[in-house]
Amino acid sequence: MTKRPSGRASDEGRPVSIEPGFARHAEGSALIRVGGTEVLCTASIENKVPPFLRNKGQGWINAEYGMLPRATHQRGHREASKGKQSGRTQEIQRLIARSLRPCVNLKKLGERTITLDCDVLNADGGTRCASITGAWVALSLALRKAKLSSVVTAQVAAVSCGLTTAGAVLDLDYIEDSAAQADTNFVLTAEGGIVEIQGTAETSPFQDHDFLELLRLARLGTAKLFEAQNAALETL
Amino acid sequence: MTKRPSGRASDEGRPVSIEPGFARHAEGSALIRVGGTEVLCTASIENKVPPFLRNKGQGWINAEYGMLPRATHQRGHREASKGKQSGRTQEIQRLIARSLRPCVNLKKLGERTITLDCDVLNADGGTRCASITGAWVALSLALRKAKLSSVVTAQVAAVSCGLTTAGAVLDLDYIEDSAAQADTNFVLTAEGGIVEIQGTAETSPFQDHDFLELLRLARLGTAKLFEAQNAALETL
Amino acid sequence: MTKRPSGRASDEGRPVSIEPGFARHAEGSALIRVGGTEVLCTASIENKVPPFLRNKGQGWINAEYGMLPRATHQRGHREASKGKQSGRTQEIQRLIARSLRPCVNLKKLGERTITLDCDVLNADGGTRCASITGAWVALSLALRKAKLSSVVTAQVAAVSCGLTTAGAVLDLDYIEDSAAQADTNFVLTAEGGIVEIQGTAETSPFQDHDFLELLRLARLGTAKLFEAQNAALETL
Amino acid sequence: MTKRPSGRASDEGRPVSIEPGFARHAEGSALIRVGGTEVLCTASIENKVPPFLRNKGQGWINAEYGMLPRATHQRGHREASKGKQSGRTQEIQRLIARSLRPCVNLKKLGERTITLDCDVLNADGGTRCASITGAWVALSLALRKAKLSSVVTAQVAAVSCGLTTAGAVLDLDYIEDSAAQADTNFVLTAEGGIVEIQGTAETSPFQDHDFLELLRLARLGTAKLFEAQNAALETL
Amino acid sequence: MTKRPSGRASDEGRPVSIEPGFARHAEGSALIRVGGTEVLCTASIENKVPPFLRNKGQGWINAEYGMLPRATHQRGHREASKGKQSGRTQEIQRLIARSLRPCVNLKKLGERTITLDCDVLNADGGTRCASITGAWVALSLALRKAKLSSVVTAQVAAVSCGLTTAGAVLDLDYIEDSAAQADTNFVLTAEGGIVEIQGTAETSPFQDHDFLELLRLARLGTAKLFEAQNAALETL
Amino acid sequence: MTKRPSGRASDEGRPVSIEPGFARHAEGSALIRVGGTEVLCTASIENKVPPFLRNKGQGWINAEYGMLPRATHQRGHREASKGKQSGRTQEIQRLIARSLRPCVNLKKLGERTITLDCDVLNADGGTRCASITGAWVALSLALRKAKLSSVVTAQVAAVSCGLTTAGAVLDLDYIEDSAAQADTNFVLTAEGGIVEIQGTAETSPFQDHDFLELLRLARLGTAKLFEAQNAALETL
Repeated sequence: MTKRPSGRASDEGRPVSIEPGFARHAEGSALIRVGGTEVLCTASIENKVPPFLRNKGQGWINAEYGMLPRATHQRGHREASKGKQSGRTQEIQRLIARSLRPCVNLKKLGERTITLDCDVLNADGGTRCASITGAWVALSLALRKAKLSSVVTAQVAAVSCGLTTAGAVLDLDYIEDSAAQADTNFVLTAEGGIVEIQGTAETSPFQDHDFLELLRLARLGTAKLFEAQNAALETL
Repeated sequence: MTKRPSGRASDEGRPVSIEPGFARHAEGSALIRVGGTEVLCTASIENKVPPFLRNKGQGWINAEYGMLPRATHQRGHREASKGKQSGRTQEIQRLIARSLRPCVNLKKLGERTITLDCDVLNADGGTRCASITGAWVALSLALRKAKLSSVVTAQVAAVSCGLTTAGAVLDLDYIEDSAAQADTNFVLTAEGGIVEIQGTAETSPFQDHDFLELLRLARLGTAKLFEAQNAALETL
Repeated sequence: MTKRPSGRASDEGRPVSIEPGFARHAEGSALIRVGGTEVLCTASIENKVPPFLRNKGQGWINAEYGMLPRATHQRGHREASKGKQSGRTQEIQRLIARSLRPCVNLKKLGERTITLDCDVLNADGGTRCASITGAWVALSLALRKAKLSSVVTAQVAAVSCGLTTAGAVLDLDYIEDSAAQADTNFVLTAEGGIVEIQGTAETSPFQDHDFLELLRLARLGTAKLFEAQNAALETL
Repeated sequence: MTKRPSGRASDEGRPVSIEPGFARHAEGSALIRVGGTEVLCTASIENKVPPFLRNKGQGWINAEYGMLPRATHQRGHREASKGKQSGRTQEIQRLIARSLRPCVNLKKLGERTITLDCDVLNADGGTRCASITGAWVALSLALRKAKLSSVVTAQVAAVSCGLTTAGAVLDLDYIEDSAAQADTNFVLTAEGGIVEIQGTAETSPFQDHDFLELLRLARLGTAKLFEAQNAALETL
Repeated sequence: MTKRPSGRASDEGRPVSIEPGFARHAEGSALIRVGGTEVLCTASIENKVPPFLRNKGQGWINAEYGMLPRATHQRGHREASKGKQSGRTQEIQRLIARSLRPCVNLKKLGERTITLDCDVLNADGGTRCASITGAWVALSLALRKAKLSSVVTAQVAAVSCGLTTAGAVLDLDYIEDSAAQADTNFVLTAEGGIVEIQGTAETSPFQDHDFLELLRLARLGTAKLFEAQNAALETL
Repeated sequence: MTKRPSGRASDEGRPVSIEPGFARHAEGSALIRVGGTEVLCTASIENKVPPFLRNKGQGWINAEYGMLPRATHQRGHREASKGKQSGRTQEIQRLIARSLRPCVNLKKLGERTITLDCDVLNADGGTRCASITGAWVALSLALRKAKLSSVVTAQVAAVSCGLTTAGAVLDLDYIEDSAAQADTNFVLTAEGGIVEIQGTAETSPFQDHDFLELLRLARLGTAKLFEAQNAALETL
């Protein structure tokens, strides 16, 4: 087994920091940094719901995800200029919304829509997980400002774990991610529940015990993320 | 705990049949029926690769997914007429391609692209899983016809399992799916490996032991699917 | 003069079969097979009309047409993925709607819209004609189910005839169609009326007497189609 | 039977004038006026062919059609701003191209593409027919300028005839067109051949003898159009 | 210093003519010719306002701009067919609307929207300026017809001036424009006010005194345009 | 005359800071803050040119502009999700490219394209001017890194000035901008040259002397911006 490119231990995540209030106009916002990955997350509250929820007495959570053209090594196409969002973008923004929705009491939210925008300023692997972790802070701040803190029913954070030549490891950066045998994103609650699992064998199938080891690492990783979220909420 | 709406036992999948060769012009095709869900899967082989793979001596697997407007209870918008594929469609077609790619030796495939088209004629839950299971047959037939059978390195099938008011159950139909607490799609190999897991808590987080029970059911369910795949390959 | 590639007599159509009810969720549906051409037609009834008909006390008929990517010898682009319907698709779906509209009493239909979806599963020439013939069955079944059978005022079917090296012939298949000097689609009623004629000289202009001979053949061809439609309506 | 709204006899077309060379930069152009309908037609020659014709030693004819937003009573959406061409636009531009293609020896044209642009400045019915009649002049002028006059093999013009409350009439204007029982566009050659027929029963099916009467009127109408085309070609 | 390609004096504009009423269906219209540039301008009045102005008791001015594919030396893509308006088109139509809006009392206009469509039939430089000058006539005619003449508060016209090898010159044609060091569009009122300035250094920065000379020329040029506008208004 | 909402003197710009290198992967980047406006500017160098410049031995400068959905008080639509860039976005990105192009020796740049991406993280007026000022820094850094510093031929910065109820003022913030009588963006060089002027009368025309006063203020304002640019270049 080889060492990780970053020299980190297999159960060692990257340094995390969360700066709340970065977007001054948003009801809630957080700039999250996980190693070299940097995502600006905002939460916007509007007093309306999508058509399929009208007059049902409940609210909704939406998410949109984007990557600045030069967040990556090679300049990527600007999706606005290309005229459509890629499949990858759509898959990720659906994941973000699905991950945050079960953490909120939609009935209690009332006929409001919260839109979570996650824009990647710098990318070094794990942007979807950083987005979810940061979006939870933005969401919490927005609801606190609207005096709706009790609408939040669970604390969630997300981390990716994977099988690499260094074995099962926590919190893949870009180099590890692009060469992993398998890569799994875990969205977990502070109480230990599973909100979303997205596991993919990139090169060859993996086994049950591999999966359980990845889940164990994810629990370790999200513990640190919950701390960082709590610290961010306290500073504002 | 309640009974399942269909009266099925919790570990009982729906009847499966696979009709190979339904699309006469395709290199490989299969019409798969899983209960009331019916998907036409075709595999097309072209002697070219996407730009990012040019001159790398390997092939590629793509997938596209669609649902006929009246496959569902309410007529859905025709995506061609609306001018774009929904996020759901894109998420599913990415899943299909990711699920089939690790089952093929891309080096051995050479500079060819196989496109898997999965079009839902009738929908009653589990269309993405039926698509993967049927696409594997279409893929195998296309490679057999091209005298490239040895390119296939694994047999995969997919099934969804979920937590419902009837407990953990195998192979959700539409009614169960729309009310489930959690829903997980498993793409597994005949040898027992995991190719893809997509698990979502719809209403509230779930626990490790729930997940392990769902995985156990999925192994039972895919066993039947592997039999149906093998039977289909023998008839042609 | 040469023989037809299929060996058929010049006034001999291809075998026709119509399977009603193929799409289980649609108000009316029919899977029509004309030789190697196979089209799934559905009729959906909605209790609303397009904006230009609001509060006019009448209904409307719309049609949409599509071809599965692998209905043809070469895989065609998926229009949903390309982001727009081709000119050919739009021309055909407008023809289908125009052909069915005069067969219905729109006043009697009331403020309802019937959408006819015609999706080609396998193509071997004559897909627009098969679509019209099958759509009439789907429409009739949907109106029967809604207890609105009297809204249907005429029975229509469509067939293409053309000038080929074998002379004027009935019901062109793909090989004949792609080499024809002229090709005309006739939409006719069971009472002998003309609903739509679309005649095109592909390589050189044709003459009045050619046209009259094509019309004569079309009358023979549609007579068989009316029988197949009636048979289908009786089985359900 | 009633009189025509315009007071014209049933076999009387509208005044026609064709101004060649209106678009100064185009290889060939003609501004055609048929009653209140006014269409600017241009022909552009490029030394290339579409991909499907590469290295086949023949040329191609394309057509595009547009209507200025205020060519009509009510301002229409600008298709460029809406982001797509309507089905009607696509149907018409396909008709124009199909009508002109059989009038040209594509082999003799060589590997060139001629694009015919027909833009309606003022609309009062019959815009597609005026487009075809004017496009033939633009095409002829462009080929003359390129010293390729012998490439033109036939002279075509188009006129619409219809069944109205005034009986079968020639050259429908907007008022007649919007209330006609049936409307047929005829594209005919100066030698009497039929290039394209597009006949539609708007409200109820029509009969063979109706059709033959419409064809007779169309021959009268196009005779005048051929004269106007010839006159235009002589002035430049 | 060299002579201008056209032989014009540096303060000599091109011949201008304005034909009012060219588009018969529009509330107001003008075909403006400035040298070889020819633009059809129409004004359409609708009794509604865009959403952001609802119930504010004021109206709005919109503009759309287009160029026929063969208005230029090389055929340009038809934007309707390409599916989007170019950045250049959008920039110009925004300029037209901004230029006309300050010439109208929007309160007095009431809850109406005037849409100005400017379509270039022939292009030889200065199409955006000709559009503004012609649109003012179309707007004035439309308001006169609606008995709202007093809504117009200022008369505007536009001209481009530039720095060329012949020095500072008035009213650039295409040849001059494509080689100018700097090019400035001036939208001025008959009273001498400035409505819009758009100045661009194409190859190298320019100086204050250059700019003032261009402004002086523009005042001379627009004086002639105001005369032509007044003459056009008198003929109808 | 009233005081400015911010209490600033009429010739007082907002505090400016420029943080070079914010985007770690870009060849050059700068995060510019002008008061409450914050724009991330990156410069990407690619060894290719657009088709119209192939084999001409010169390079090109492109620009793209975007605003994060929550850079503003009200959440704006994400253009990538809407499927097109607004006219405002296109107008601004064309302005940015036009402003930077004359500052570079395109021949000396060789067959390379530099793309300037300007993404607004927080908006409080003047985003297009901040983009130009920051883009010049990103461009300079990218060229320095590529050892092509001599390609830069001029230093540019941009500022908006306007006529408000407080008279002619320098560097409008959002509140001033939305109520200004006139607003002009000046792109100036350090040597005093004018690269671009974009002046708009929002409510009523303005006069020559107004314009000259705005230009005088712009010179004062850009002087401070040139200092900030130089300081940023020195820190890296």
